This record gives sequence, structure tokens and C-alpha cells, in this order.
Amino acid sequence: MRPRKRGGGRSSWGIHPVSERAPARFEPAFDGFADRVRESFGRQGAMALIGAELVAVEPGYCAIALAPRPETSQQHGFLHAGILATLVDSAGGYAGYTLFPAGSSVLTVEYKLNLLAPAQGERIVAEGFVVKPGRTLAITRGEVHAEFGGARTLVAIMQQTLMVMHGKPDR
Amino acid sequence: MRPRKRGGGRSSWGIHPVSERAPARFEPAFDGFADRVRESFGRQGAMALIGAELVAVEPGYCAIALAPRPETSQQHGFLHAGILATLVDSAGGYAGYTLFPAGSSVLTVEYKLNLLAPAQGERIVAEGFVVKPGRTLAITRGEVHAEFGGARTLVAIMQQTLMVMHGKPDR
Amino acid sequence: MRPRKRGGGRSSWGIHPVSERAPARFEPAFDGFADRVRESFGRQGAMALIGAELVAVEPGYCAIALAPRPETSQQHGFLHAGILATLVDSAGGYAGYTLFPAGSSVLTVEYKLNLLAPAQGERIVAEGFVVKPGRTLAITRGEVHAEFGGARTLVAIMQQTLMVMHGKPDR
Amino acid sequence: MRPRKRGGGRSSWGIHPVSERAPARFEPAFDGFADRVRESFGRQGAMALIGAELVAVEPGYCAIALAPRPETSQQHGFLHAGILATLVDSAGGYAGYTLFPAGSSVLTVEYKLNLLAPAQGERIVAEGFVVKPGRTLAITRGEVHAEFGGARTLVAIMQQTLMVMHGKPDR
Repeated sequence: MRPRKRGGGRSSWGIHPVSERAPARFEPAFDGFADRVRESFGRQGAMALIGAELVAVEPGYCAIALAPRPETSQQHGFLHAGILATLVDSAGGYAGYTLFPAGSSVLTVEYKLNLLAPAQGERIVAEGFVVKPGRTLAITRGEVHAEFGGARTLVAIMQQTLMVMHGKPDR
Repeated sequence: MRPRKRGGGRSSWGIHPVSERAPARFEPAFDGFADRVRESFGRQGAMALIGAELVAVEPGYCAIALAPRPETSQQHGFLHAGILATLVDSAGGYAGYTLFPAGSSVLTVEYKLNLLAPAQGERIVAEGFVVKPGRTLAITRGEVHAEFGGARTLVAIMQQTLMVMHGKPDR
Repeated sequence: MRPRKRGGGRSSWGIHPVSERAPARFEPAFDGFADRVRESFGRQGAMALIGAELVAVEPGYCAIALAPRPETSQQHGFLHAGILATLVDSAGGYAGYTLFPAGSSVLTVEYKLNLLAPAQGERIVAEGFVVKPGRTLAITRGEVHAEFGGARTLVAIMQQTLMVMHGKPDR
Repeated sequence: MRPRKRGGGRSSWGIHPVSERAPARFEPAFDGFADRVRESFGRQGAMALIGAELVAVEPGYCAIALAPRPETSQQHGFLHAGILATLVDSAGGYAGYTLFPAGSSVLTVEYKLNLLAPAQGERIVAEGFVVKPGRTLAITRGEVHAEFGGARTLVAIMQQTLMVMHGKPDR
């Protein structure tokens, strides 16, 4: 399921919503790519702790959502930037993982996150997109939107480097 | 293989632990700088949720620690990178906030985080250091160490941009 | 003039070429926005030194191109990453500047650059896109493509923070 | 207003100058590590073009300097941020390269650069420090100081990821 968009299909700023993009052009390395992501997600205690939900897994793409609660807030009542980072780091990581070979796992080498607006709303959706897959490294971009009353606001963008851990399955 | 450690509680890699550094040379903007950080930290639901503790507040410096639990883990049992990011983003933000004038609050504009080693141990300590204070922006660096059996391992480094929100008190 | 694309209009990796994007939706702050960018570009000794050319200025968008020469190479003969950074930092900065008010100038606070592939070809084109304009800060993304034999390869992506210098004209 | 300086050639902000740091604790992989860096530097057309000079090569450390000229300026007469990036990206890359095995070369995966103050002075010095070496990746930090009249001002900080290109010598 892709996040809903407001009328006109426009994001609030200069990055285009997913629906305006061409369909993913990546081939997963093996059939079980989505199940592997779902099982890995299910083993993350931190995801359950913060109340995150895996909402989409496609080749080169992943979306994770969360309904903000008082326990996920910073001092002004918005979603804590670290929780937001947890979502988008994971969305980017799993987007990359969909393209990694069987028997491998995924490691975040680094990421950079710009926070654009307070993350407040009924639902926060973090999406990861593979920009360049590779044998050793994969590069992704991430976007986080806040949804409120049918509108979407872009609240953060990310750029991330992942490492393919060959021969080290996720469990 | 992990890098060799050296005696005396030294960090394992090429950044010096806090004790080897000269004392902070920054002047806080007003006397209540540490209380203001403590009160702000206390209002962050996310900090209580993940079990983080504020362990030091000095002019231009802040340290936040956490004892890892199953609920703060990623899929391999290490501290989740997003939780680690929550710690170090906050440590950097509060380091900057110690130097901001009365009546202001702090906003993270962006940060970049390199994850160097799995964050596992008895305690994870995130430290923020102001590199350059300013009237509108402040630049900080962050380091995260994992402590185990008396040894410290550097597990992440951060570089961060903060914004001074003049005339917008934290509460 | 927008950079040429290879057949099918597809970029080589997961970021869409400009033509697949909706037209810019930003309003420049005043009529002379493009002339102001051209004059500022003309005053940059570094741009002349490396042989860079300003190829497009639109509201929220800027493209700068360069034909690689031996003097712009790194040790393997590809375009030096620092020269590439010069191009894309400037493209992002001028993209932001198109939306800044009269009497202001632009400052790069920080950027993060991922190098995806060797920058080699007949022409290297760096593009900057405003993601979020603001009164004090503006956030941009950048892309660098290498053109060779009618094909385009994405060789770098950037994420950047700019500052609006109110009341400090560019000259 | 610039921050107060302290005697003894201290840096103006919160990062310690090199002389206050403990000696490097890294072991080079082979004896020819410094010659390999010097030869690689000599093959970079871009370094000659901008007038950069290799001033120090030690295990896990490299310094590159430049005397600013009109041709290396941006539109306000300061050193162009892209030229500064060229210096510090190379300093970080060569710092890492000192620890890479024989028969390998070095590739910048990504870096993030914060610009702290205008780069103006008699000499601009970029330094790279290895934070964590590794078999596949190496992480470095960089600092750029502007020297004028015996004082040093920290003008930029960098955080960088390098890749070890095994079996691909630099020439």
C-alpha cells in the first residue's frame, strides 16, 4: 500500500510523490525478497517499541509508517527526530535489502538527514528508494511525509550508504 | 578482528576520549543553562520510552547514556541505529542549547551519522560537542561509545547543524 | 537548455531525469533572478579556472556543465571529485538563490555528496533542485550526470543546506 | 564578531589543533606508504591546476595546503567552497590510503562538509585523520584551517567514507 496523497497528487515541496514516478525498474535477486524483509522487520525490537509498521516492500523500495503517540514525542510534542530517523534509516535499509542476494544481510554505513518541518500528523510515512545498487555498497534516498486530514507534507529527506554483508544471513 | 585497545580506557580508534581533551572553553549565555537542558530532556517522551538518561551537561557539551535492552535492538540484537541516532542527535542538540540565549529553543537542521561498529555493551554513551556556536546556526560533532568490561569502543560519529530559535522558548 | 538524455528518457539508475519531472512550481522573488545568478557566476574565478559553464537558470533550478580536460582530472584520469563538488555545490546554491529576495546573497552551510560512478565523458552536468525554500535556510538536492555518446550516467547525488544572507547583496 | 582567540596558535573553536593531539597510533601496511601518496598526488591534474601542495603524510594522516589566488575564489573573493572541498576530500582520502595494503587504490564513497567561516588568509590547510580503518571501508574526519598573521581559524569540518580498492593499484 502506497501512502495517500492529497488532491492534485502534489507533494508540498519540490520532491515528487511516488505516484508521479515511473514504476520501479529493479529486479530482486530472488523470489523471497519481500518475506525476508518482513521477517527481519519482525525481529527488530525497536520497531515494536516505537509502534512502526511495515507498509510496503517492492524491489528497490520500502515504506514504514507510524502513528505518533506521546511516547514518541520530543519536547514540543512533535515526533522525535530520532524516531523519524529510525523509520527512514530502516526504510532505506530495507529498500536496499530487497536487491541483495540470498544469504546476505544489510548494514547502514552512514546516512545524512535534513529535517524540513515538524513531523506532526495522524501518520508519519518514511520511504526508502534505491538510487544505485552495487555488489558491495548500495546508495539510497529517503523521504518522510506527515499525513494530516488527507494532505501530505514532506518533513525530511535522507541520503544513505548501505553495505551488502555477503555470506552473513540476517538470522 | 577489532582494533587493538590500549590501557587507560582509551578509545579504540583515532578520536580521543573526552578525558584527554582540554576543558570546554565556551561561556554559557546565562546561569540556568543546565537546568534548561534538564527540563527539556524531561519533557521528551521519546527519551523515557527508550530508557535514555542525561549524564552530563556542560557549556558546549552534553552526554546521554542508555543501557541496551531487547526493546532497543535491531534484528541482530545490537542497539538499533535509530535509537543510537536519537541519543547522539539529542546530545548534539543539547550541547548547542547550553550556549543559546534565554528565551530561545533549539532545532536540528540536519546531521550526518557514520556507524563504525555494532553498538553492543553494558552502556552506550552519546556525547555532543559544540564546534562552532553562532547567532543563527551552531555546528556540533557527536561521538557514541559502547562500554563493556571497562573498555570503550567508538561506534559512531556525527556532524550536525542546529538552528537557534530566538524568541521561542522550549516550553 | 536542459541536458540531453539517452533513448527512452531514462536515467541509468533510480533517479528520474529532469524531463520526467513536473515543471518547477516555484516563484522567483523578483524579475532579475536569472541575471543575478549569471552575474554572480561570472564573478567566480574558480568557475573560469575549471572551465565550467552556466547552462540553465530557472526558479528553483540551476544546471552547470563542464567538458573534462587533463587539468580537471584526478589520478586515474576521471573528473576530480572536488571539481565535481564545485559544480554541484554551485548548482545547488544558485538553484536556491533564484528564490532569494533582492538584496540578499547565498551561503552554503553544508552539503553531503555521494559519488556513484567515475565521472568520465564528453560533458559533466551538475543540476541543483530546491526541495524546500525558507526565510532563513533553503534545502536543495543535486545530481551530476556524465554524458557520453548520447547516453547519460548518474555519477553523484548531493543534499545541501543553504543560508539566505538578508541585506548582503552578492556584490 | 569572530570568537576570541587564545595564545599559542590555538584553533578558534572547539576542535583541537593537531599539536594538541596524541601522536598517530596507526601502523602503515607497508614501507612505501608515503611515496605512494606523493606519486598519486603528483598525477592529479586538478591539484596542479588549483595550486595545491602536499605538506604532510603520516600513517592515518595527510595535510594539503594552498595559497589562495584570484583564480581560486568564489564571487566574494574567498576561497571557493569547491576548491576547499577538493583539498579536504583529498586530504581525507590520502590519510586513509596511508593504511591501505600494497596493490590497492582509494575511492571516496561519500563525504559531508560543513563550512564554518569564509576561507580567507595567506594559506588554507586541509587535514585528514583516519577515524576507523577497515578491510573494505575506512572512515575519516577532515578539518580546514585558514592561516593569517600567525593565527589559525577553523573554516570547515568534514566526515568521509572511503573504499579500499583491493587489487587495483593507483596506476
